[in-house]
Amino acid sequence: MSDRADQFGCDFRPHFKTHQSHEIGRWIRSAGVNGITVSSVSMGHYFSEDGWDDITIAFPFYRGMLPELIELEKQASLRLFLHQPGQVALLDKELSNPFKFYIEIDAGYGRSGIKHDDYNSIDEIIRASEAAKHCQFHGFYIHDGGTYSARNREEIRHSIEASLDALLKLKEAYPQAKISLGDTPSASISDDLSQLDELTPGNFVFYDWMQVQIGSCTYDDPALFAILPIAQQISPDKAIVHGGAVHLSKDTIIQNNVRTFGQAVMFGDKQTNPIEGSFLSALSQEHGTLSGFMPRQMKDYVVICPIHSCLTANLFTYFVTPSGKRIEKRIGS
Amino acid sequence: MSDRADQFGCDFRPHFKTHQSHEIGRWIRSAGVNGITVSSVSMGHYFSEDGWDDITIAFPFYRGMLPELIELEKQASLRLFLHQPGQVALLDKELSNPFKFYIEIDAGYGRSGIKHDDYNSIDEIIRASEAAKHCQFHGFYIHDGGTYSARNREEIRHSIEASLDALLKLKEAYPQAKISLGDTPSASISDDLSQLDELTPGNFVFYDWMQVQIGSCTYDDPALFAILPIAQQISPDKAIVHGGAVHLSKDTIIQNNVRTFGQAVMFGDKQTNPIEGSFLSALSQEHGTLSGFMPRQMKDYVVICPIHSCLTANLFTYFVTPSGKRIEKRIGS
Repeated sequence: MSDRADQFGCDFRPHFKTHQSHEIGRWIRSAGVNGITVSSVSMGHYFSEDGWDDITIAFPFYRGMLPELIELEKQASLRLFLHQPGQVALLDKELSNPFKFYIEIDAGYGRSGIKHDDYNSIDEIIRASEAAKHCQFHGFYIHDGGTYSARNREEIRHSIEASLDALLKLKEAYPQAKISLGDTPSASISDDLSQLDELTPGNFVFYDWMQVQIGSCTYDDPALFAILPIAQQISPDKAIVHGGAVHLSKDTIIQNNVRTFGQAVMFGDKQTNPIEGSFLSALSQEHGTLSGFMPRQMKDYVVICPIHSCLTANLFTYFVTPSGKRIEKRIGS
Repeated sequence: MSDRADQFGCDFRPHFKTHQSHEIGRWIRSAGVNGITVSSVSMGHYFSEDGWDDITIAFPFYRGMLPELIELEKQASLRLFLHQPGQVALLDKELSNPFKFYIEIDAGYGRSGIKHDDYNSIDEIIRASEAAKHCQFHGFYIHDGGTYSARNREEIRHSIEASLDALLKLKEAYPQAKISLGDTPSASISDDLSQLDELTPGNFVFYDWMQVQIGSCTYDDPALFAILPIAQQISPDKAIVHGGAVHLSKDTIIQNNVRTFGQAVMFGDKQTNPIEGSFLSALSQEHGTLSGFMPRQMKDYVVICPIHSCLTANLFTYFVTPSGKRIEKRIGS
């Protein structure tokens, strides 16, 4: 992903919410990354403790963040998401060091951000920053969650068009602004993102079964798995495994008209292969129901590729590599 | 709940997977409870560290549990869930202290357990235990998750009938067996459970919005809430809050044909009141979308009654009481 960002001439500021691990962060630092993106101030603190000093808090600013931000600005240069002129004035007063901010744009996904054509609001915020001492408008950011409903490369490309258009129009109106895009599908497969200034994908570090279905990666790319003990064989095509919502979270994907909570895979010598028709069909707190084809080798445990690796990783207190090495991570939300 | 168990003459062995907290466990101990139920061996270890020495591991036994069980039996009398005669022989050999076991029964819910009318399998397991040294057959256990689809007291009563019938028939066939039931809805509202020997509900310790909808409790009963900062007002009836899947998990309930990830409530002097039509309509990793009516008092934060308190509690590293006291809990799965 770092190479792709280089190829497009984009600044690569990956989102670290997926792994939440100092050690994995260091792997990424060794690829030349200096600036990172996180989804909460406390996650920012966690990474500043490991020496990261250029951190974007990719969540709409609210007043309750202030006490933690005042601590964090002592350790790191901050980039914040502001959506009201009053926030510019407040932070200019409360923070002591220079900081940058993005205006998050909603180009149709409909989560957070200012509507892409609401120039009045955008103008007001930027004007407020021109009077400020510490605070510098940096650019526009879009997380296009719409690409998550794509199911092939063509649909990803199509789905991202509205976001790209919005960012390019904004850049025309505000030529000093950097434009930044955050989703893993388009960062993974777009042929050309060279019009963007920054890329901030996060999920790519592990990928997952949803990204395979979207078309962001192949089934050999995911790098996070849950190895679940098989506890009780109910019938030839149904077993209870020790792996529930407290291990995998409950994100699902509909595949062949069936709701799936995780895909069974087999580790091969050279690649990981999905076991066709073998998946988690239900989860309660600790129980998972494994359904479908169960090859003979699948006796004591099943390897599950999670639907949404960000949420699965968040539920564990550490990772283990294939060679048995334990990788620590952040605990708690 | 302890009073209800007394009233029915049942042994009360509550499930501790909902709170996962030493301190809350002590409140329950002070009500006279001695035996508890947990959903994993590591959760059993956590509670044995606080002096609990009579612990049911309410999850189908599998061989991978053994190393941890061998440690745990040094601290606590165990009750296990066995479903194969070979497991009786294995544990009789591997464990050093006497232990009891349940045969978990599936009376139609279709998760784990042996089918209620599969007398061959049941006979085989019990016969195996008669030859064993350490191992004593204790009784039959049903978790009737079917009550979770009920939407009033009548439906809960109706939904539990198959489970009660199955347990009573098994008791007729095996008069020495204790019969044990695990779900919160029927433990909360059934008029008479005196035919049962044991009650093991767990969720009742907090209840949640799903239990309100089921009819297990009223909207004033839930005791676990997430207080979420309001980050960005998108429109008069839509706001982004800092509270996502890493805080609430993603269990949902359909209410008035709309999928709900959490219900907004208002703390009153005497009771907690739901704010009609105000709820979380979407969750991503850190973002929640609050939809509907937002009273003027709801400015900086919203109080959310979670859909499924077990999963929400599991995601936090501690609780805070209304008076500001911090209550520690178990971390990790």
